[in-house]
Amino acid sequence: MVERRMNSLVKWALILFVLVSIILNIVLIDLSLPKKVDVLAYLSETSPKPVREATAVVFHGSKGYIKEYVVGPLPNPTYIRDVTLEKYGITLPINARTVTIGEYNLLFKFLDAEVFSKLKKLMKESFDVDENKKLNPFEQMPRGLRSGDRKTWISFFRDVSGMYIHPVGFEVLVDHGSVDASQWKVEMLLYNGQYFNTVEELKQKYDAMSVKKIAYKESPDYDSLKPKNKPLQIGPQLFYAEGKRYSVSNNHVLYLDWSFAFGLSSLTGMKVFDVRFKNERIAYELSVQEAMSVYGSLTPGMILTKFLDSSIGIGRFAHELARGVDCPYEATYVDTYRYIDVQAPVRYRNSICIFEHNMGQPLRRHFGDFFHKSYGGMVNSALVFRTITAIGNYDYMWDFIFYQTGAVEAKVHATGYISSSYLVDGSQKYGHQVAENVLGNIHTHFINFKVDLDVLGERNVFQTKDMEYVNVSLPWKTDHYAMVPQLVEKQLKTEQEAALRYGTKTPRYLHIASNKTNKWGHQRSYRLQVFSFTGDHLPESEPEERSMSWARYKVAITKYKDSEQTSSSLYSQNNIWSPAVDFSKYIADDESIEDQDLVAWVTTGFLHIPHAEDIPNTVTVGNGGGVLLRPHNYFDEDPSIHSADSVYIKPG
Amino acid sequence: MVERRMNSLVKWALILFVLVSIILNIVLIDLSLPKKVDVLAYLSETSPKPVREATAVVFHGSKGYIKEYVVGPLPNPTYIRDVTLEKYGITLPINARTVTIGEYNLLFKFLDAEVFSKLKKLMKESFDVDENKKLNPFEQMPRGLRSGDRKTWISFFRDVSGMYIHPVGFEVLVDHGSVDASQWKVEMLLYNGQYFNTVEELKQKYDAMSVKKIAYKESPDYDSLKPKNKPLQIGPQLFYAEGKRYSVSNNHVLYLDWSFAFGLSSLTGMKVFDVRFKNERIAYELSVQEAMSVYGSLTPGMILTKFLDSSIGIGRFAHELARGVDCPYEATYVDTYRYIDVQAPVRYRNSICIFEHNMGQPLRRHFGDFFHKSYGGMVNSALVFRTITAIGNYDYMWDFIFYQTGAVEAKVHATGYISSSYLVDGSQKYGHQVAENVLGNIHTHFINFKVDLDVLGERNVFQTKDMEYVNVSLPWKTDHYAMVPQLVEKQLKTEQEAALRYGTKTPRYLHIASNKTNKWGHQRSYRLQVFSFTGDHLPESEPEERSMSWARYKVAITKYKDSEQTSSSLYSQNNIWSPAVDFSKYIADDESIEDQDLVAWVTTGFLHIPHAEDIPNTVTVGNGGGVLLRPHNYFDEDPSIHSADSVYIKPG
Ligand SMILES: [Ca+2]
Ligand SMILES: [Ca+2]
Ligand SMILES: [Ca+2]
Ligand SMILES: [Ca+2]
Ligand SMILES: [Cu+2]
Ligand SMILES: [Cu+2]
Repeated sequence: MVERRMNSLVKWALILFVLVSIILNIVLIDLSLPKKVDVLAYLSETSPKPVREATAVVFHGSKGYIKEYVVGPLPNPTYIRDVTLEKYGITLPINARTVTIGEYNLLFKFLDAEVFSKLKKLMKESFDVDENKKLNPFEQMPRGLRSGDRKTWISFFRDVSGMYIHPVGFEVLVDHGSVDASQWKVEMLLYNGQYFNTVEELKQKYDAMSVKKIAYKESPDYDSLKPKNKPLQIGPQLFYAEGKRYSVSNNHVLYLDWSFAFGLSSLTGMKVFDVRFKNERIAYELSVQEAMSVYGSLTPGMILTKFLDSSIGIGRFAHELARGVDCPYEATYVDTYRYIDVQAPVRYRNSICIFEHNMGQPLRRHFGDFFHKSYGGMVNSALVFRTITAIGNYDYMWDFIFYQTGAVEAKVHATGYISSSYLVDGSQKYGHQVAENVLGNIHTHFINFKVDLDVLGERNVFQTKDMEYVNVSLPWKTDHYAMVPQLVEKQLKTEQEAALRYGTKTPRYLHIASNKTNKWGHQRSYRLQVFSFTGDHLPESEPEERSMSWARYKVAITKYKDSEQTSSSLYSQNNIWSPAVDFSKYIADDESIEDQDLVAWVTTGFLHIPHAEDIPNTVTVGNGGGVLLRPHNYFDEDPSIHSADSVYIKPG
Repeated sequence: MVERRMNSLVKWALILFVLVSIILNIVLIDLSLPKKVDVLAYLSETSPKPVREATAVVFHGSKGYIKEYVVGPLPNPTYIRDVTLEKYGITLPINARTVTIGEYNLLFKFLDAEVFSKLKKLMKESFDVDENKKLNPFEQMPRGLRSGDRKTWISFFRDVSGMYIHPVGFEVLVDHGSVDASQWKVEMLLYNGQYFNTVEELKQKYDAMSVKKIAYKESPDYDSLKPKNKPLQIGPQLFYAEGKRYSVSNNHVLYLDWSFAFGLSSLTGMKVFDVRFKNERIAYELSVQEAMSVYGSLTPGMILTKFLDSSIGIGRFAHELARGVDCPYEATYVDTYRYIDVQAPVRYRNSICIFEHNMGQPLRRHFGDFFHKSYGGMVNSALVFRTITAIGNYDYMWDFIFYQTGAVEAKVHATGYISSSYLVDGSQKYGHQVAENVLGNIHTHFINFKVDLDVLGERNVFQTKDMEYVNVSLPWKTDHYAMVPQLVEKQLKTEQEAALRYGTKTPRYLHIASNKTNKWGHQRSYRLQVFSFTGDHLPESEPEERSMSWARYKVAITKYKDSEQTSSSLYSQNNIWSPAVDFSKYIADDESIEDQDLVAWVTTGFLHIPHAEDIPNTVTVGNGGGVLLRPHNYFDEDPSIHSADSVYIKPG
């Protein structure tokens, strides 16, 4: 069981905690990834197991910087090493840090003292706020306009469970740049579309009746997810008539011809490693890298909003999955443990689910009608590996799906609450009204996956295939010409050539290929088929763009480096103008990608123009994207032909 | 039950048969579609039921033309009317006719007499063909190079169930243009990559050893769909713990808030009518129109191939579905009846299936973590309405899926055998080798759907929505500018403006909208979200292009006309150069599409570069396309919130 591995995590974390957390402010402990070469040697049984190490992130508030330390060996650490410079090449300024629960508590106290307690009359009349009833804050990011800024527009919402779609029309800009909270200050306020420089100015003008007042009105609970009708008859259920055909042991899954290891990073989320089909490694790593959104708004709470979720923590919000809703009732549920912004590791019960699903369609079939009447087919049963991460308003569903054809799919769907803003004149340029006084703001969803395929070893090439009409003369009637589709194949040589930008025509087939050939002489390959409905990427002229430069590309291919583990970082959100990781630098050196260990960075997503049906929740249907990794001349024939699920019928 | 309606079909067809089929050569009888205005009046209970009529297609071979007749009223017809000119505006030349079973029989006899019996030695030595063993023909289309031609390249394959991937390297060009089979002749032959003008020339050169001979070799049955392994443990199954939540009565389906009528045309295939959600009509018709493929090849058997399946009949090949593979075991199976190229109507048992499926994911969910801990969600259970049509080598799976959000999806997946050709020098420009001496030829799949949405009545407009970055000054810091996404909305005015070509940038959101507004003042609309991986469309300069001109467009919007029922026709394949229906003419008059009854013609599909894993069958995963029709400000909130499947959990 996963518990075993996690128990050792508990053990070393506690040791570490005792050793250093009294002195230092540790914010995050996560397992470090060993060097790929060491892991491969271990997996091929030519080397011992690599030493396990942990990475600890420490905010040195008083010194003005952040440090990352590697601690090892686990489970009984004896050394600690500062790896900040070797990892990022720069020092990390303290203002790049994420906002901790500690800082939030200070912020809430600050707002109470400096804003709410000074605006009691307004608060009561406009929002029915008093000792018994409060508003909830939702902050926008980035926090300012330039590096070093830590100035956050905080928007206020009704204190209901779906607060995100109940904006009240009150927003406050707080400068919390100082590590000393007594230095913080309110820089500006927005009330019902009007700006005020100070709390006092708002109070005076409000009392002087020179502002357009919001009069409190009870609002219906259109955010409620409570059932409005009693279940009469439950829908179709899945059952394993003959038991499960997969097994989960520690963090390792076996399913028919598949095997893989899995992990969940507090920051980037779900990942699988050493993905094998018929005992041959296909991928070293498939993982979520980043979920980014750019919003449009008239009001300051969302006008500059660019969320980079991995800075807050995607995997961090992988909570308990609801049986029968989030995953089928009979799925296998696995607990995870995390140490982020807490005093000790926390167990998250049932936060991963694994199940085989009947996809409700044949994987392949043929009905022969002409010369030989027969039927052959096979139902599409596939293994789904899932987490769902609820990062504030949004819930992202992350699926890795393993098919009996040797294909594996990484998919994401969005659900949960949209972000919204209080409707003022001119708002409608930025979205649609979705409830009384509520604008659903236009935004993009960009998701980045890391796809480290290793096709028959690490040395691979990147090839593209497409079609082209060529005017050819007919061989039996050479004076007659016709446009005939031909196959066009290319091998891209360098990282920049293989950085396939959004908005450009790209070849339809993208392959990570080996130089080894299949029985028919073709290079064995896996094809990347990307499903995406992304909106436009932020123009590169914007200073915030560098921290999300991976989103320029549908697919970008890099030469693997241990030092280029992720396309984003914990520090991208709060130092967005000068990010610790700028993906475009991975390809700036334009290295050769021929016969190298290649990594594909795949971007998918969708443009979201919210509409009334996003209330109360965005639905998953149609709101997603993904990438299918499919064998293409990797085998000599479709491997599913060997599946015991095959069916053949011949009329007697 | 559906049987009732079908029995009346049997009745009138028999009457018709007795009346006229002795004199005329009736090839097809299908129900005619009544005028939409009459149907709507009937559905709104302001008019009686429209008279039921049938269309009969007759090949007047000796007169050199084809006629279409309308016969009515059913079930006891009293009149017959020639509608050819009013329907097509042209007379239909006899060479536009489809090849009937009768003509095939004559063709096979012709080949036996004129080719096989004259090449016995070659046949035995090269292909092991003798009295006990034959080859199977697979013909390529179009049949020639210009209007009036009926010259077909027939390729030969081994006589096995998956013959399509066993080409032997022998192809014959037969001119069967005359309605008198004694006038037919062999125009050319291809053997092992060499061309011969006559059978005699091939025979002589073969005997004289001046051709490169093919020596027969037993080949493995890599086409076999027979299971290679015994089932040990069956995969997950679906079951209805509390019974089915849908009902099928005649050709009418009820499912939770949905209702629709369905039909299956022998030519175009699956269609649904009068699709209602919460008793409000959303679509008058959703239907399959055409499945088209353009192939590339070095050899003549596929160099010009452009299949237009509706000319052969898509629905015609909707055969019995395999329980537990094609559809879940517990699905509801419905019989259909057809009269095409037979002497009497034929019943096709279990050729449609209907089932509710647990899609294995939440339709929506939110886990609240911050201020209010609670969970709300709902599993995605949807109704699937399916046929699978096996047109020769290929099997297309057609799904209409009805979601509890008010969305409906039309989807197609391809499976079955690829078309292949015998490998010769230079073949590899046109595909990949997939078996010994076998090339899987590159080809496109283009699928056309008719989507006649009626959003709150027939008078609708076509609108697009997208995003655009605009440089705006920050309201609280006006000297600072930032690029912020804005919503861009347009209403397209005419058919040509709304013909959205492949290869051009098109707005991301496409809507059929009413002028009526929802609670929040937005025009109620349905959005068309197209999933497609199509290859390039045949250049318009090609004379064959006009019969597939619908494939120029991702989406094209026309003003509804009873006379523009389909985007293709029975006569498109065999008179491809001068088609009876040229879709581009529907939009050539560039009519206004504002406040009109609109029809969206949606094209989807994929580029298929065959690879070893297409052997034995192409798999459905990743090989498909479709269109999702989703409410967008149609409601005031997501209707699934009223579903009894909703779940809510609050920690006690
Ligand atoms: Ca590089
Ligand atoms: Ca690699
Ligand atoms: Ca028109
Ligand atoms: Ca319409
Ligand atoms: Cu969204
Ligand atoms: Cu294909």
